[in-house]
Amino acid sequence: MTRPTPSEMHPSRWGDPARATALPDSARGLVELAFGPRPWHERPALDDAPLPPSGLADALLAPLRATLGDEHVRTDDDTRRLRTRGKSTPDLLRARAGDLADAPDAVVRPGSHDEVAAVLAWAVEHHVAVVPFGGGTSVTGGLVARREGFAGLVSLDLVRLKRLISVDRVSMTAVLEPGLRGPEAEALLGAEGLTLGHFPQSFEYATIGGFAATRSSGQSSAGYGRFDALVVGLRVATPRGEWRLGSAPANAAGPDLRQLVLGSEGAFGVITEVTVRVRRRPAVTTYEGWRWPSFDAGADAMRTLAQAGLLPTVIRLSDESETAINLARPDAIGPSGQAEPGCLMITGHEGEPDAVEAGRLAATAVLEGLGGTPLGTEPGEAWVHGRFDAPYLRDSMLDVGVLVETMETATWWSNRARLYTEVKAALTASLGEGALVLCHISHVYETGCSLYFTVAAQAAGDESATLDQWLAAKAAASDAMTDAGATITHHHAVGTDHRPWLTREIGELGGSVLRAVKADLDPTGVLNPGIMVPVA
Amino acid sequence: MTRPTPSEMHPSRWGDPARATALPDSARGLVELAFGPRPWHERPALDDAPLPPSGLADALLAPLRATLGDEHVRTDDDTRRLRTRGKSTPDLLRARAGDLADAPDAVVRPGSHDEVAAVLAWAVEHHVAVVPFGGGTSVTGGLVARREGFAGLVSLDLVRLKRLISVDRVSMTAVLEPGLRGPEAEALLGAEGLTLGHFPQSFEYATIGGFAATRSSGQSSAGYGRFDALVVGLRVATPRGEWRLGSAPANAAGPDLRQLVLGSEGAFGVITEVTVRVRRRPAVTTYEGWRWPSFDAGADAMRTLAQAGLLPTVIRLSDESETAINLARPDAIGPSGQAEPGCLMITGHEGEPDAVEAGRLAATAVLEGLGGTPLGTEPGEAWVHGRFDAPYLRDSMLDVGVLVETMETATWWSNRARLYTEVKAALTASLGEGALVLCHISHVYETGCSLYFTVAAQAAGDESATLDQWLAAKAAASDAMTDAGATITHHHAVGTDHRPWLTREIGELGGSVLRAVKADLDPTGVLNPGIMVPVA
Repeated sequence: MTRPTPSEMHPSRWGDPARATALPDSARGLVELAFGPRPWHERPALDDAPLPPSGLADALLAPLRATLGDEHVRTDDDTRRLRTRGKSTPDLLRARAGDLADAPDAVVRPGSHDEVAAVLAWAVEHHVAVVPFGGGTSVTGGLVARREGFAGLVSLDLVRLKRLISVDRVSMTAVLEPGLRGPEAEALLGAEGLTLGHFPQSFEYATIGGFAATRSSGQSSAGYGRFDALVVGLRVATPRGEWRLGSAPANAAGPDLRQLVLGSEGAFGVITEVTVRVRRRPAVTTYEGWRWPSFDAGADAMRTLAQAGLLPTVIRLSDESETAINLARPDAIGPSGQAEPGCLMITGHEGEPDAVEAGRLAATAVLEGLGGTPLGTEPGEAWVHGRFDAPYLRDSMLDVGVLVETMETATWWSNRARLYTEVKAALTASLGEGALVLCHISHVYETGCSLYFTVAAQAAGDESATLDQWLAAKAAASDAMTDAGATITHHHAVGTDHRPWLTREIGELGGSVLRAVKADLDPTGVLNPGIMVPVA
Repeated sequence: MTRPTPSEMHPSRWGDPARATALPDSARGLVELAFGPRPWHERPALDDAPLPPSGLADALLAPLRATLGDEHVRTDDDTRRLRTRGKSTPDLLRARAGDLADAPDAVVRPGSHDEVAAVLAWAVEHHVAVVPFGGGTSVTGGLVARREGFAGLVSLDLVRLKRLISVDRVSMTAVLEPGLRGPEAEALLGAEGLTLGHFPQSFEYATIGGFAATRSSGQSSAGYGRFDALVVGLRVATPRGEWRLGSAPANAAGPDLRQLVLGSEGAFGVITEVTVRVRRRPAVTTYEGWRWPSFDAGADAMRTLAQAGLLPTVIRLSDESETAINLARPDAIGPSGQAEPGCLMITGHEGEPDAVEAGRLAATAVLEGLGGTPLGTEPGEAWVHGRFDAPYLRDSMLDVGVLVETMETATWWSNRARLYTEVKAALTASLGEGALVLCHISHVYETGCSLYFTVAAQAAGDESATLDQWLAAKAAASDAMTDAGATITHHHAVGTDHRPWLTREIGELGGSVLRAVKADLDPTGVLNPGIMVPVA
């Protein structure tokens, strides 16, 4: 069989197999300390369990082959395997157990907006479910659509829509196609001296279309803005035809319907072009570390910066537990050996030299005034160096029987401490006292912030038992989040995993409105069935 | 009869009668120069033409009286007159002609969310159209709902919902009721040392609910943000029940449904609480004037500031024509007598002393470097002093037979010059070479800006002829805006006047989605029928 190329991920692991490693020594010690002796073994081979046969007959696919070309309508096992589910721990556990039941019946690769529209028309005609596929990085079951009631399910792979269509240097906007992965978009813009400034942890695999469809937020969003703030225009293929939005930076022409497409997770249409605000590539980037006596003290400092309009480009704060095991430096996870307890904060300033220096000085004055201890540039550079590596580490931990997963939320500043305490308590109660529950704040606003939890626990047993273990913990934490009035997700989207909690957040009427919009744009319901839109 | 109190406006004129004046001498000269001798007369008396009788029988109103109390269900002429239409020039011309056919059948004044809900339930039961009424300042026909097909039409006056419900000083948010007018909200927040920072020209009359329902943008929005950026939470009464939104500053929990309520103009529900981001009241405010050799040069300077992240709190630029007649200073309109031609820019910096000084110095360096001539603080202070007075001037001009109206749009920076030229040409072609067509930029973004046009023309004749004259000019300009790909409105909302152009901006699918949402939340269509939502 063909091994996955670096741009396609195997359903059982994150990323490029060439970059996957066994657990580093630094982490081994920590893991044994926390969870006892491990069965240390080499990284297991990728599991190429057989797939269920494609349920779509050749005759049904024939018109699609005629439109897209034979090579872009694939039903072979290798292609289907690489489009099976996303990258949540449940997704990985199921694949590790050899369960590839969610494999699409076919993978179709349209090469233009019009071909996307043709796929949708075909899907409506034959009542085939369509799952838009970008980087395959969903961690909320966003690629596990319902297939019951449909003639089959196709993965609509946007891999051929990879153009930088145009750049408007006066308005500082660019039109990008949805299949561009983060690094590809940055390379194309970089050749023009520009950047999008959007760097979520999934950056190396996730795509422009996915960023838009899930309202992604990146590690530099304090400086560059969330992805929904970067988008100024959209082109969407829907079962009812083409939809273009974006007449001006802002307007008062009724509700801002761009914000209805952003976050629609492929359930309302397939985004085929995204017009984004761009910035000049920063001339200077400076990252620094700060130590705070407590999570509360560091969080208050973040709030002060946000409310004073002095936010750096990047700002993150690990709680005491996360700091203690060096999670901010995936290459050096393990006991930090720090003499002093406390919390690590990373700040990053990017831009023109004068502005960076002015911003850094202003932020430094505030942070020192509030009791932060500057740690110099080394911790910041270490974080930058390792910031896309955490998903590899999760695989290595699973290999040695340690369940690792993340979940995140956001709330108002006045509710932060309560939310932190209650979610942590819920996770600990569900996973047991032996579990590690770590947290950081990675996105801050004038009125509130995100909380990003990482848990590590002795796996309950085989993949099935471990899956049950995690689902129970996830449910407990999700209940705690919504009980505290916080959001079920700050930047991981709804998918299937968060859908049961969405109505608690947006109300029965919110669910009703989403169903009404879906019914209007996708009357036969072929687009990503079961994703995002709450059931009645 | 009772004369309008300062908080209620007569349908034929703007504002407080005690502040209305005849045209100042400075403007007289200009008007005679432009349009010839005028019939100079005193300000005419308010026209108290009789209203059509209320079409709602007492029996129908009885349950409402039982719920709200007799004094809050009014059918007297004076109360109905003061809730008749808004403040567009067509609204004023119709009232001046004695046409008050759009008067509501009754004015109802609920005192709480639950009472608003009760009014909606009553309206659904009896199929009565409901027009939410805040300050009555709409300039796009937002208060002229369709009554055909309904048993009657009530104005749902939010005047009793005027509380500052709570302040969260940690999160820097406040919960406001929708009936608070701009100055009332600022006074309540000011007592806490806080400000909303939202100052549209309608500030003295417009309300919190109206700001939210129309996605208002104020004169300080460069610094404080548009109103839709200030809103973090909403409570809405709909015919299907209560809807609360706002779990966090930002999230990825599906589309941001707050943005569907913001801009819904009372067609989806009645906003009963608005949670807004607040700021500390600025310790320092500094306004300055700058002269630019041309509108293009000044606009390029604005773009440079916006793209460098150096925007002041306020930034405005008048074109050559507007500068020449001093429109930026309503108390001194007339030939400016300026020796040099050029364009006036106003900049304003607000905040803590150090930040203001740093921002002012950085902006000054950019503006001087680009060829701007500093004019000191006097022009800026003059603008601040007169900034809410322009609507009074429009009445005085109408009194002497000069049609004055405004309209506004927004576009990307690269499209600015084209949009300016084409809208100006369309207005001039429609109104004749003798018309004054003036323009300023009052809202700027990294990717584009607004254009705000003011026209003055010899009125075509009586109110009916003048109305036809204006409607033709408005249509020509609206066509030019949408032909140029710009928005039909940057901050005046859709109402009835912009509705015919909305589909050109948001597409047939956009219109369809708005109808689907309306049908879902307001199944019998009683809420503001004919407003905003495009016809199929």
